[in-house]
Amino acid sequence: MNIKFEEREELKEKIKDVNNLGFGQYFTDYMFLMNYDEDTGWHDARIVPYDNISLPPSAMCLHYGQTIFEGLKAYRNGDKVFLFRPDENFKRMNRSNDRLCIPPIDEEFMVEALKKLIDLERDWIPDSKEASLYIRPFVIAIDPKLGVHPSGSYLLMIILSPSGPYYKDGLAPIKIYVEDKYVRTVKGGLGTAKAGGNYAASLKSQVEAEEKGFSQVLWIDGVNRKYIEEVGSMNIFFVTEDEIMTPELSGSILPGITRKSIIELLKSEGKKVVERRISIEEILTLHKEGKLLEIFGTGTAAVISPVGELFYEGTEIIVNNGEIGEISNYLYNELTDIQWGRKKGPEGWQVEV
Amino acid sequence: MNIKFEEREELKEKIKDVNNLGFGQYFTDYMFLMNYDEDTGWHDARIVPYDNISLPPSAMCLHYGQTIFEGLKAYRNGDKVFLFRPDENFKRMNRSNDRLCIPPIDEEFMVEALKKLIDLERDWIPDSKEASLYIRPFVIAIDPKLGVHPSGSYLLMIILSPSGPYYKDGLAPIKIYVEDKYVRTVKGGLGTAKAGGNYAASLKSQVEAEEKGFSQVLWIDGVNRKYIEEVGSMNIFFVTEDEIMTPELSGSILPGITRKSIIELLKSEGKKVVERRISIEEILTLHKEGKLLEIFGTGTAAVISPVGELFYEGTEIIVNNGEIGEISNYLYNELTDIQWGRKKGPEGWQVEV
Repeated sequence: MNIKFEEREELKEKIKDVNNLGFGQYFTDYMFLMNYDEDTGWHDARIVPYDNISLPPSAMCLHYGQTIFEGLKAYRNGDKVFLFRPDENFKRMNRSNDRLCIPPIDEEFMVEALKKLIDLERDWIPDSKEASLYIRPFVIAIDPKLGVHPSGSYLLMIILSPSGPYYKDGLAPIKIYVEDKYVRTVKGGLGTAKAGGNYAASLKSQVEAEEKGFSQVLWIDGVNRKYIEEVGSMNIFFVTEDEIMTPELSGSILPGITRKSIIELLKSEGKKVVERRISIEEILTLHKEGKLLEIFGTGTAAVISPVGELFYEGTEIIVNNGEIGEISNYLYNELTDIQWGRKKGPEGWQVEV
Repeated sequence: MNIKFEEREELKEKIKDVNNLGFGQYFTDYMFLMNYDEDTGWHDARIVPYDNISLPPSAMCLHYGQTIFEGLKAYRNGDKVFLFRPDENFKRMNRSNDRLCIPPIDEEFMVEALKKLIDLERDWIPDSKEASLYIRPFVIAIDPKLGVHPSGSYLLMIILSPSGPYYKDGLAPIKIYVEDKYVRTVKGGLGTAKAGGNYAASLKSQVEAEEKGFSQVLWIDGVNRKYIEEVGSMNIFFVTEDEIMTPELSGSILPGITRKSIIELLKSEGKKVVERRISIEEILTLHKEGKLLEIFGTGTAAVISPVGELFYEGTEIIVNNGEIGEISNYLYNELTDIQWGRKKGPEGWQVEV
């Protein structure tokens, strides 16, 4: 498919202070759009000036949450620009699409379209070891009808947001509240898809945890209310002397691309990584016995988030004296070195633009 | 709060053939809007020409499903126009708002605003015993930011859609597929809120059920996978010789206003109505023993939907010979008579515009 291009009359001023960009607040000059309807399929791929979109008040995405998204980043290393495994994002987008009854996209075409957009906007990518350009592909249902049924028409967009370092003062351990009241999702629901509704479901829990002084929540499963699932916007790993464990993809956990990359990285170095059901009680016991060395989260935003404290039903555990663990630190450096192209990563992980 | 009014230059042509209106496809001349931001609270209430809205591509509702809605109808009886318990809708809207971290609205003001809008659009209400004007109040999060956090700004809208009779050829029993793969939600999730994400989660199940020849799905609980919750867009009732049962509001079921009204109506007539956990096995056993007289769904769209057939894991049961039951028929007539103002209902049920 050909990608049309509409040039802006005037470019915006770039933001100089990359440390104070925050996350997802500023947007670049251009965006990518593509429409779907039942007669033509996906069509009208175009790169146009970033601007508001016009939607009928009856557009299905505003009523029935038929929306999915992805998140990845472009990293600058001098004149070189890299994407990290973008094919994985569009593969996952198609899995989300399938669960939400959205027609599939051509994954290879989308990687090419993204590269074209990033190349056009390469001056927006912060020249920084920690700041980067956040990329948000998303699909919204736009049929102007209120019947509860999959939409017949969709809009796919990619917008770009130069974003600051997740940790302004360097990698720092976070405090996590284990959620015992709200449930994110269960097997059979939307949990494995990057669907808007999952995030809507998490808002109240996140707000209440912050009020209690925690920065994120850890979800436990909604059926048995004891198995660990994921952290607000990350997957989670536990380090013992023998192995590194992470909850298996049970049907209610988002299959993180950073999660997958960390598992592959650790395995390639001969580390024992286990994906299985992990109960919160097991973690408390391991901690009591002095066998729990580190906990860390993995995600696109923070890459690695060491967990310094975990709070569950009145019990507080301090992990690794509240300090950054050896493995967390190593993985953060290793993966960011690969993402920024400072080091060669496994085949296909670094896509130069 | 004062409601501003912006007049259209030209009114649209009304649709004459009310039997072929379908549902939620046509919209009237005007809509109600109101904005929220953290400094001013809810403000700028206005009735303006129905038109597209302009949203930044980063508007939170397009990414994180922070949207809720309501649904009710205006009924015409000659020159008289009635709303059915609109206060209940705005009460529920506030409960949905609370769960989704959306600031509360003034319920009384909203009823007044709705009456003003309906009065202005009264010519759009079909003059029909079965067609009516569907009313869709909804709230969307509009902060132009990608951080996963409750939005600081919102847009509340009410749009109106003249809609045809749910049953074109009169009340007819439906075939229902008991969903054994997908889960709508569980306690601790968004199930009790009228949130977009719940409907997104239901689409695939609904599509697969339709492919198998069923018109709706019956959700069973996501924890034990055996207790009956609700039908796609309705609550559900079971009639035996002794009593009328419906699943209790367990924390994952939408508290339907038609459900509530039917319970109140039946109780006021001395009928025994029980709200409790009901397993699908119990229903199959009751049917086997010849004790299951009727099943019906309740909702704003169809009012009462007699269920003629239920299919669960290979077992098909035919209810009341696939015919409309006595109680279903009675309740349909009774409630529609009240809604259309052909009969006086309990205090506060009929709000004349």
